[in-house]
Parts: sequence; structure tokens; C-alpha cells
Amino acid sequence: MINLFEYNWQVRDEWLNWCETIPEEELFKRRVGGVNSFHFTLFHIIEVEYSWIRAIQEKQDVPINYKDYPSMESLQSLSKDCRLEIASFFVDNPTFDGNKQIQPEWEKTSFSIQDILHHVIVHEVHHIGQLSIWAREIGVEPISASFIDRDMREVSDYLE
Amino acid sequence: MINLFEYNWQVRDEWLNWCETIPEEELFKRRVGGVNSFHFTLFHIIEVEYSWIRAIQEKQDVPINYKDYPSMESLQSLSKDCRLEIASFFVDNPTFDGNKQIQPEWEKTSFSIQDILHHVIVHEVHHIGQLSIWAREIGVEPISASFIDRDMREVSDYLE
Repeated sequence: MINLFEYNWQVRDEWLNWCETIPEEELFKRRVGGVNSFHFTLFHIIEVEYSWIRAIQEKQDVPINYKDYPSMESLQSLSKDCRLEIASFFVDNPTFDGNKQIQPEWEKTSFSIQDILHHVIVHEVHHIGQLSIWAREIGVEPISASFIDRDMREVSDYLE
Repeated sequence: MINLFEYNWQVRDEWLNWCETIPEEELFKRRVGGVNSFHFTLFHIIEVEYSWIRAIQEKQDVPINYKDYPSMESLQSLSKDCRLEIASFFVDNPTFDGNKQIQPEWEKTSFSIQDILHHVIVHEVHHIGQLSIWAREIGVEPISASFIDRDMREVSDYLE
């Protein structure tokens, strides 16, 4: 399952780099469907993953304020910082009790760790699919979503 | 990992049912990005999953001709027929040698079974994300992509 995080992280980095080639006004423009804009979607992906993985670790939720990340550069840093903590957790815990129940602070019920990991994985893939439509709408080729044919970095590579 | 197929199949069924509430011309209209239309995207998801899972079973590829599925009803049937074969395979093979290498007829290199399963999973989630944008563009609420809060059917339920 961790391979799917590695996939998501690589695709996310490619989109963050892709954004550097796009005029800023396109990145912040509010679009139809999805969550607002290219910029907000990437923020949302990072924030949701971080919150749920902190919940799995039974750490207190640390709300991330969108207004603190007004540029693509600050979003790149946020992604790296959050991922460093998550990668450390994955490397330190190569196996999970997937059935263990977790109740995040913002939820009224509990969920198994396995369900939470699945939730976080599909959450990112789903929103990245949305970015690919918006990319074509502004006439630019989107990042490939293919899982195969990738030279995938491993979770431990993200500790560096 | 099979949970992610169960998730995809449930979400796909919800989209196929959603399509029944949408005027046919919207379902077949060629749209920007993604793969052509609502109808073609759902066909493509079904066909790609079926081809790869047949490859894992080392069965001969059976090309599925888009022209043979000109309606939503025929697509519903195709999805059910393909899924019955895939569900049977999963139920009969509760564990895989994920490292076993498979070379599908249409590829020049081989891939591990694990990578193929991951590929098929993210392929569907990605394209479903695209449908959700198009749904909003025609002013209709899309199917929820949330993994949690679902009463998930199991693979064996699809044998009935």
C-alpha cells in the first residue's frame, strides 16, 4: 500500500513543478468543480493527507491555514515539510495494525487505519484527475497519471 | 489492496446509475480533457481493468470493441460481465505472488502483478475524478469519491 503513497508523492511533485510553468493567474483562478483552483487543490491534498496521518499517529491535529501558503513556492515547502514527517512515520513503522480503530478529532466515528490509508490514497488520485481536466481546459498537457513506467522513489528517499 | 477494487466497483456502479438520470446527449458529448465523454470514460475504465486482469491470469487478450456498446445499458452489462470474471479470479486466488512478472500482449516489457494491480486501481480513480469535473460543468452534483463512510460490498458479493 505504501507504493501508492510513493506514486502520489511523485505525481504531486510533478504537478507542483508543472505549476511553475503556468501563469500565476491560471493557478489561482476559481474553476468549475473540484476544489476551487489548481493552487487550492494541491493545498487541500497536502493538508488532508497530513491531518489523517497525524491522526493515525494519535498526534494532536495541527490545522494548516490556507492563507499562510499564498504562493506555489510556499506550497512546495509545505508539501516537503508534511511529507518528511509522514515518511519518517512510515519508515519507523514498516508494519501497521491495519484493524486498529482511530477517531480523528474532526470526526464523530472511528475508522480502521487501513481504511484511513485507502481514503488518503484515493483522495489524492481523485483530485489529481480533476487537475488533468483543468490543464487541458487551459490548453496545456497534464502530468501523466500512469502508475507503471515510473522510476518510483521510495518512501525512505523522502527523508533526505 | 482488493478493498480498492471494491471501492472502485461501488463508485463505478454509482456513476453508471447516475448516468441514467442525465440526458443522453450529455453522456455522449465530446468534452475537453480526459477520454472523450462520460460514456467513453466508463467504457475505457471497464476495458482497461478487464485487459490487465486477464493478463495477470495469463489469458489471451480479448479486445472489446467500443462500437458494440452504444448505450448506457450495454455498458452496464459489459461492466457486470467483466467484473464477474474478475471477481471469480480474486475469490479463487485470495493471495498473489505480487512479484511475478507479467508481459501483456500489448506491452513491450513486463510488470509485476503488484504494479499492475496498483496501475488498474489508480487508473479508475483518476478517470472518475475527471467525470466529477464534467458533472459540475453540466450543473449536476457528482458521485462522492470518499472511501470512508461507505457500506462497501465485498468482492464475493459480485459473484451473485
